[in-house]
Order: sequence, then C-alpha cells, then structure tokens
Amino acid sequence: MKIRKALITAANPAQRTLPLQVLIDQEGVAKPALQIILEEAHDAGIEEFVVIVCPGDQEAYATAAGEFRSRIQFVEQSGARGYGRAVLLGRAALAGEDAFLHLVGDHLYLTTSKEGTGCAKQLIEVAVAERAAVSAVQATRESQLPYFGAVGGRLVPGGRKLYEIEAVIEKPSPTEAEKRLLVPGLRAGHYLCFFGMHVLTPAIFDLLGELEAASAGKGFALSSALHALAGRQKYLAFEVSGRRYDIGAAYGVLFAQFALSLAGRDRDLVLRQLVEQLAQG
Amino acid sequence: MKIRKALITAANPAQRTLPLQVLIDQEGVAKPALQIILEEAHDAGIEEFVVIVCPGDQEAYATAAGEFRSRIQFVEQSGARGYGRAVLLGRAALAGEDAFLHLVGDHLYLTTSKEGTGCAKQLIEVAVAERAAVSAVQATRESQLPYFGAVGGRLVPGGRKLYEIEAVIEKPSPTEAEKRLLVPGLRAGHYLCFFGMHVLTPAIFDLLGELEAASAGKGFALSSALHALAGRQKYLAFEVSGRRYDIGAAYGVLFAQFALSLAGRDRDLVLRQLVEQLAQG
Repeated sequence: MKIRKALITAANPAQRTLPLQVLIDQEGVAKPALQIILEEAHDAGIEEFVVIVCPGDQEAYATAAGEFRSRIQFVEQSGARGYGRAVLLGRAALAGEDAFLHLVGDHLYLTTSKEGTGCAKQLIEVAVAERAAVSAVQATRESQLPYFGAVGGRLVPGGRKLYEIEAVIEKPSPTEAEKRLLVPGLRAGHYLCFFGMHVLTPAIFDLLGELEAASAGKGFALSSALHALAGRQKYLAFEVSGRRYDIGAAYGVLFAQFALSLAGRDRDLVLRQLVEQLAQG
Repeated sequence: MKIRKALITAANPAQRTLPLQVLIDQEGVAKPALQIILEEAHDAGIEEFVVIVCPGDQEAYATAAGEFRSRIQFVEQSGARGYGRAVLLGRAALAGEDAFLHLVGDHLYLTTSKEGTGCAKQLIEVAVAERAAVSAVQATRESQLPYFGAVGGRLVPGGRKLYEIEAVIEKPSPTEAEKRLLVPGLRAGHYLCFFGMHVLTPAIFDLLGELEAASAGKGFALSSALHALAGRQKYLAFEVSGRRYDIGAAYGVLFAQFALSLAGRDRDLVLRQLVEQLAQG
C-alpha cells in the first residue's frame, strides 16, 4: 500500500479564512496554518495534495501554501454543501491511489511521541503495516461527544493502541455511545473520538456516492460512509501520540499558537512575555 | 476643530495580511484586526476612513471591514514605497478637513484609563481642546529606541501628560536621544516614543510633499515631516492611558490576543486553558 496523496478539506464557507491565519511554528517561522498542515503531511511522505476550497479561494490558498504551491490540485465546492460531499469531490483527483491521507484544513497537530514522529506519519505507518484504512482517534471524555465523530470496536491484540472499528457515529448522544461505542480497555467514561486525520481507501468514494444518490441534495456526513466502510473492509482506529488543536474553535488560534510556542524554540521568550502581561492585567 | 476622518496605512507588502488576521475581541467576538482598529476610531467619533492598501487588497479589506465597509475609501500604493509616501497618498481624500486621525494598520490598542475611554478618543479630545496636531506617545525605555520614532519637548503646564514637541527623530541612537530628546520630568533612561496614533493637520501633506520632491524616488519617513511640523505650528505629544500591541512583531498576534482576552469577557476561560496547556507541556 502506497500513500502519496493527501486530501485536505477547507470549503466550509464559515471557516474559509482559518487555513490562511498566520501562526509561528515551533522553529519560530511565521507561516499560514495551511503551510503547517501541508508540512505535517509532507513529513509523512505525502508528495501531492488535493485541496477542496470555496470558489474564489484558490489564489489566496496557493499563496499561503508557499513551497508546496506547485504540488496542489484545487477542487472547488460551492455553497455550504457539507463535509461528506467535500470529501467526495476529491474522487477524480485521487483515482488510482491505493489509499490517501485525509486531513481537515482547520486542525493543527503536535506530536507527543518520544521519537518526535509526526501524527500523520504515525498514522500512515500503521496503515501501511496493516494494509487497511485507519482513522486517528483520541480517548475523549463523554462530555466532549457532542463535538466529534466517535467509533466503537475492539482492541487488536499486540500491545498497540490499535482497534478494529465496528461502528461510527457522528456526535453520538451519551445513551447511543454507551450502547454502541463502549470500547473494552478504555478508561471509564471515555470514548474513541476522531482526531481529524484518516488514511482512507478509495472504497470511501463509492460509499459517499451512494449517500449522495440518496441525499436528495441535502448534506451527508463522512461518518456515515465510514460506518459503512467498517462493514465492508478492515477499518482500524489508532490512538496517535499527539495533540490536536482545532483553530476553528473559540480561541483556537490562541491555544494552537500557545501550544506551538510551548513546544518550540521560543518557549522562554513567550512565557516571559505572557507572565509580564499577566502581571500588568 | 472637527475630526471626522481617519487615515489608516496598511500598504507595506510585508504586512499586508496582518489587518486580515482574525482575533477575538474583549466581548468574545471573532473579527479581523482591521475591524478592531476601525471600531477604535469609530468609538472616537470618526465617520469615514481612508485606507492605504497594496494593489489587489481592496476586496479582502472591504470584506474584513464588516459594517464599516461602506465608509471606507481605498487608495492603492504599489510596491514598497515607504511610510511617508503612504500617508501622502491620503492627501486628496482628506482635502478640506481641519485635522484627521492617523492609525497604522497593524497596531491594536487597549485602554487603561479609569473611565475606559479608548486611546483614540483620549487623543482626539486633547487635539480638539488644544486646537493642534497631537501624537500619542508612551514613556519608553532607552533600549527600545531602535524600534520607534521618538520626540523631545517640554511638559505643558497644567498637570496633564501633555508635551510641546520640539524635535522628532526616527529610531534615534542613544547618543542622539540623549542630546536632543531628553524630556524633563520623565523617569531616567526613558524617552517619549510614538504609539502609532496621531491627530494630524493638513499641513503634514505640504511637508511630505516637500520631502517627496527632494526624495529622488527614495523612501522618506513620516517622522521627518513631523519634525518639520513642530517648527511650523503647535504640535503636541500626549501620553495616552493605554497599551499598544504591534501585531507585526514576533508573536504579536499571540500577545495581542492574550491581552484582549485578559481584559475581556473570557478571561477565566482563557487562563484556565493556558494553565492546562502549561501543565501538559
């Protein structure tokens, strides 16, 4: 299984400017969030990118992509047509691939692995070893279920944090989660929630196509197709060693920037200034 | 003296995206930095805005301006032609005004006045009362002189932090500053440095025009014209009660956002999260 392309969705009209927000990376270099995301994928071996954008955003995104500009194929999605449809729009550009990496355009990742291996790289290594679709997940408190897609399944023997997925539900209620998504071995009150990062097989496009055919023009969730995927082929979940920062959440950019700074070269400079501001304010 | 227009410079090609960066204001509302700047001016009584931008940036800025969109007249400056020339480009749009407010497009302000009066409003009140051009200044440590324009002059009697300006030097050396910019009454080792906010009279355009005529196409500093202004008419400096955040400086957006949050509605939420991240990292 070779994974050389990444699909990045950034066509939610309410979030179109998020990947263009400039942050300072761990090396102290200012760059758009998009570039940090592309670097995450590139460090995991990705050579080409398919980016789903709102009409009119191509040029701003191409500029924001910096050195990766020439490796991007843009696909436009008009209107707020939903996340499932945004992924489906990547179909033609990903035809013929064994599998591809999928990232959302408004999440940044920081690895916490001892070796410093990036989150996308950890995920791709598992997908290649297992020859299967794999979604990155994080053990998440029940109170956070309203914000995420969540999976149920069973630990794969072998001492890794790897699970065979049996069910996927988007933003489950606590009752649904308790009935269908309990995963033996997790801490009490915790569920495996999506982390915004997946390795998917082209089968996902057939499943999304079926959902679209039945959608009557309405939106449909990627999670529904992922649930169907679990019924058709081996589909895994892997707890990556890392943290995810949703820059679209309230104060998301602030918290992502703070995390990058704390983990980076300018930790002391930033901490000193924040403490000084605290003393003033 | 009526002050109803503001001139905002945002045409430095290296900083053109700064006013588009989204921050969360003190009320918890996400908005581009440009909108926060326009609100500062609007709260001080400004009705119309003249914004100097790079060619091609008009539409992005108009969108970022939100409700103020229809009150903005854009003027394009091509290439990196310098700050003095950017201000001069506002001449036609400001013809006939008694005086105007001038702000730079990459600074945000937080008031520390007891009454909560915004920095721009404090400055305009002084300009109207004194019927004179006034620059906002801040007592600044000598070590910071390489980053700012600085003024020398004498305290105006009356118990306010108001000075009659005698000299203006852009980024003075410590020796120059000691010789020409010492201000009696300031703490030792401190100078009055610009704060990025001025009320200017149209005379500034004549002076900038003279500098341009002599410039042979090179850049020229607003500070040079301000120095000449002090020789021609009453020109004051006022220490506003407030803090300035330069979002173009290293980690400027992070520190500005942190300051807005500390002074705002979501102080506790933000502090809790930052402490949690500190504990993790």
